[in-house]
Amino acid sequence: MDLKIVEIAKPNPDLNVIIGQAHFIKTVEDLYEAVVQAVPGVKFGVAFCEASGPCLIRHTGTNDELENAAVTAAHAIGAGHVFIVMLGNAFPVNVLNQIKTVAEVCTVFCATANPLTVVVAEHNGARGILGVLDGSTPKGTENERDQADRHAMLRRFGYKQ
Amino acid sequence: MDLKIVEIAKPNPDLNVIIGQAHFIKTVEDLYEAVVQAVPGVKFGVAFCEASGPCLIRHTGTNDELENAAVTAAHAIGAGHVFIVMLGNAFPVNVLNQIKTVAEVCTVFCATANPLTVVVAEHNGARGILGVLDGSTPKGTENERDQADRHAMLRRFGYKQ
Amino acid sequence: MDLKIVEIAKPNPDLNVIIGQAHFIKTVEDLYEAVVQAVPGVKFGVAFCEASGPCLIRHTGTNDELENAAVTAAHAIGAGHVFIVMLGNAFPVNVLNQIKTVAEVCTVFCATANPLTVVVAEHNGARGILGVLDGSTPKGTENERDQADRHAMLRRFGYKQ
Amino acid sequence: MDLKIVEIAKPNPDLNVIIGQAHFIKTVEDLYEAVVQAVPGVKFGVAFCEASGPCLIRHTGTNDELENAAVTAAHAIGAGHVFIVMLGNAFPVNVLNQIKTVAEVCTVFCATANPLTVVVAEHNGARGILGVLDGSTPKGTENERDQADRHAMLRRFGYKQ
Amino acid sequence: MDLKIVEIAKPNPDLNVIIGQAHFIKTVEDLYEAVVQAVPGVKFGVAFCEASGPCLIRHTGTNDELENAAVTAAHAIGAGHVFIVMLGNAFPVNVLNQIKTVAEVCTVFCATANPLTVVVAEHNGARGILGVLDGSTPKGTENERDQADRHAMLRRFGYKQ
Amino acid sequence: MDLKIVEIAKPNPDLNVIIGQAHFIKTVEDLYEAVVQAVPGVKFGVAFCEASGPCLIRHTGTNDELENAAVTAAHAIGAGHVFIVMLGNAFPVNVLNQIKTVAEVCTVFCATANPLTVVVAEHNGARGILGVLDGSTPKGTENERDQADRHAMLRRFGYKQ
Repeated sequence: MDLKIVEIAKPNPDLNVIIGQAHFIKTVEDLYEAVVQAVPGVKFGVAFCEASGPCLIRHTGTNDELENAAVTAAHAIGAGHVFIVMLGNAFPVNVLNQIKTVAEVCTVFCATANPLTVVVAEHNGARGILGVLDGSTPKGTENERDQADRHAMLRRFGYKQ
Repeated sequence: MDLKIVEIAKPNPDLNVIIGQAHFIKTVEDLYEAVVQAVPGVKFGVAFCEASGPCLIRHTGTNDELENAAVTAAHAIGAGHVFIVMLGNAFPVNVLNQIKTVAEVCTVFCATANPLTVVVAEHNGARGILGVLDGSTPKGTENERDQADRHAMLRRFGYKQ
Repeated sequence: MDLKIVEIAKPNPDLNVIIGQAHFIKTVEDLYEAVVQAVPGVKFGVAFCEASGPCLIRHTGTNDELENAAVTAAHAIGAGHVFIVMLGNAFPVNVLNQIKTVAEVCTVFCATANPLTVVVAEHNGARGILGVLDGSTPKGTENERDQADRHAMLRRFGYKQ
Repeated sequence: MDLKIVEIAKPNPDLNVIIGQAHFIKTVEDLYEAVVQAVPGVKFGVAFCEASGPCLIRHTGTNDELENAAVTAAHAIGAGHVFIVMLGNAFPVNVLNQIKTVAEVCTVFCATANPLTVVVAEHNGARGILGVLDGSTPKGTENERDQADRHAMLRRFGYKQ
Repeated sequence: MDLKIVEIAKPNPDLNVIIGQAHFIKTVEDLYEAVVQAVPGVKFGVAFCEASGPCLIRHTGTNDELENAAVTAAHAIGAGHVFIVMLGNAFPVNVLNQIKTVAEVCTVFCATANPLTVVVAEHNGARGILGVLDGSTPKGTENERDQADRHAMLRRFGYKQ
Repeated sequence: MDLKIVEIAKPNPDLNVIIGQAHFIKTVEDLYEAVVQAVPGVKFGVAFCEASGPCLIRHTGTNDELENAAVTAAHAIGAGHVFIVMLGNAFPVNVLNQIKTVAEVCTVFCATANPLTVVVAEHNGARGILGVLDGSTPKGTENERDQADRHAMLRRFGYKQ
C-alpha cells in the first residue's frame, strides 16, 4: 500500500471546501439539492467519484469555475465514493448539517478554507482517503484575553449575542 | 505502528456493507433496532468489536448468513469499537441516516456494494481503522450525455421525478 | 509524510473522551452549549485547534481539570480543526448526537473511556488525524450465554426494558 | 369561524395515513423522494394542498389507488399547505423521521391506521387543521401482565430484542 | 363535536411536562430509551394512550410518582396516540430533541413547567388534542434593560457564554 | 373557552412567517443563532411569548422592521411559549429544519408567505394556538399538464435538476 499526499487546488484561496465519503450516484443530485436549498443564490460546485461501472467523476453545481475545481480535486484524490463541494458565496456552517443528513453521506472529512492536504492510500489500483491536514498546527494556548477577543469576534460577526 | 490491508469478504458480491466507529456495547441492540425499524422484513447482520473487558465480537441480526459475514469482517478488521452491518434485501439509503443517528455511532467509514478494502493501523496490540478503499478509481469525467443518462437512470429507478 | 502515535492522557482512566474534526472558531462555544444543554450539572472540558491566524488552542468547559486535560490532548494531537471533549459525570450517549449535529462538526473519530491512541499524519508542518486505536482488539465471539448476559446487563443498567 | 369534522376515507381500513402541515409546492417532490428512499418497493400516495396561485391539489406516488385516496382526503380537509401520505406496504415508523426532516414540513398531526377524524376550522373561506381524533379513547390502564404482553409482542414482531 | 378543557395535575408545580402525538405501542419503550439515554440518573414517567385493540394507557418510567402522574394526565386527556412525559430531575432541553426524533413521534404540543391546560375535542366517543394553554399571556414587551437581564441570566445559568 | 381569530400583519405581504411552540426564554437566543447561521446576511426578526414571571415578549433579530412585526404578531396571538419568525431575504426551506432542531422548539404550526390567520383559544386568561389558516383552499386537482408545469417550475427555480 502506498500513501500519497494530495494538495487541493482552489480557484481562490479563501474558498471553503467540504470533502466527504458517500455512496451511490444519487449523491450528486442530493448534494445539489441540499446546498441549493440551504442558501438563496448559492454558488458552488460538486464532484463525486463513481466507484463502479463507468467510474466517472460525476459533477454538478451553480457555478462553472467551482464545479471545475471540484472535478479537479476529485481527480487528484481519485478515491471511490468521495465527494467534494467547493463553496463560493456561502460558509460551511450554512450547509454542513444539511450535507451530513444527505442519505448517501457516510462522513465528512473536513470543511475548511485553509490550505488543505488529503492523505490517500492506494493499493491494487484502489484508493481511499485516510485523513486530511487542515491548515496549520497550534502555536499556543489562548489566555483570558484571547478568549475575550474570540467571544467579541463571534458577536461582531453576528453569530452570537 | 503497522498498516494492514483487510479485504472484506461477503457471501454475495452484490451485498452492501456499512462500517463505522461506535462506542459501548449498547451499539449492538441500537443498530438492530434502527435497521429493523427502517425496512419491513429487512435481512441483515450486525457485528461490533467490544473493546474492553471480555472484548467479544458482539453480534445480532435477522439472517444467519449475513450475521456470520459481519462477524467474519469484524474479526478481520479487529479494531476496537468498530461495527459492521451486512445488508441483504435493503440498500444503504434505506438505513444510513438511521444508523448515523444512533447515539453510540461516531462515524461511518463507508456504505458500499463495491469490493472493499479497509486500512487498519496496529500498534502495541491495539488496532484502528484509518480508511477504506471503496471500489474503483475514476476513469474519466462525465460529459453532458453521461449526465443525461445519470439523470434518466435515477428516474427509471424511481428515486427522482 | 510522517505517521505519529499520540497516546491520550486523562486525569482519570475512566473518563470518556470524544475527538472529532470541525471547522471555525465558533466550534468552541457551540460545543460548550451542546454539552451544557444535554446534561444538567455536567462537568467537562473542550479544546479546539484553531488552524489559521493565531492558531491557538481554544478551550472552555465547566471543570478546570477536564478543560486542562482537553488542552493537553489538543497539544499532543496538534492537528488543525480537531476538537477534544473530556467528559466527567456524563457518558458519550448523553451528548454524542448533540455533538454530531453541531453545525461546525464534520465527524467524530471516537467516543471512549478506553486507553486511546491517535494516529496523526504530519507533512510540511501540517498535521491531521488518520484514525484512532480505541481500546483492545477482539478476543473471541460472543455465544448465546454471552448474549444473554449482554442483554441482561443493558436492562440492569436501565438502558433497555 | 366554523369547526368541521372530516372523516378520512381509506381504500383499505388497515392502511396507515400521515397528515401534516408543510409549505411550498416543492413539498410534493420532497415527500416523494423521502418515502421512496425509505423503503424499497414502497407503495404510497401523496397529496398536498397548494395554498396560493392556482391552489391545486398536487399529488404523486407509486400506486394510483393510494394516490387517489390521498387526493380525496386532501379535498375533504381542504386546508392550505396540508399534506397527506397514504402508505400501502410500509409502516409509519419506516418513514416518519424522514418525513419530519423534509425541509418544507412544519409538523405532523398524526400517523395512524385507526379510524381518523380531522377537526378543521373554516373562516372567510380559508381552512386549517386544528387537530385529529385518532382511534379510540382509553378503556383502562395496563397492569403488570399487560406490560409483559406488550414487551413480548414487540419482541415477537422483531422490533426489540 | 364538544371542546373540553383539561387541566394537567402535577405532583409538584415545578415539574416539566411534555405532551405529544405519536403512534403505535412501541412509542412507550422508545420514549423510555430516549429519556434514559439523555440524562444519567433521570427520574421520569411516561404514559401513552393506546388507540386500538385493548386501548390501555401504557406506561413506564424510573419513578413511580411521576409515572402515576403521567397516567393520570393520560386519563384526563383521553385522546388516542397521545403521550405524556413527566420529568423530575431534568429539563425539557435535555430531552426534547431526543423525543422529537423518536420514530413514532408525530409532534410535541408543549414542554413546560407552567400551569397547563389542554384543549380536547370529542366527537362520537373519539378524542384529540387541539392545542395547549401554556402558562400566562404576555404582560408587555422587553426593553433594552430586560434584554440585558435575559442575556445575563442565561450566562449565570451557564447555558451561554 | 373562547376561540379567537388573529390575522397576522406583515410589513410586506410577500414576507414569510414561521410560527411555533417552544419553551424557556433561551428559545430567543437559540432561534437567533439558528437563523443567523443558516443564511449569510439574513434579515429577520424573532419574538417569543415568555409565559411565566415577567411574561414579556422577548425579541431579537437583524432587522428592526421585521423584529417589530414579530413582536406585533406575538402580541396579537398572546399565547404562552409561542414564537414568531419574520423572514426578510430568505425562505422557510433555508431555515426550517434548523428551527425544528432548536432544543426548545416543540412544533412549528406554519411557514408561509400566504395571508395567515391563527386560531387561538382563551380560557381563564391563558391563551394557546389551536391551528392556522394558511392561504387559500383548493380549487381543483392538478392534471398531467399541471404536473409538468410544476416539475418544470422547480427546475427553473434551480431547486431540482
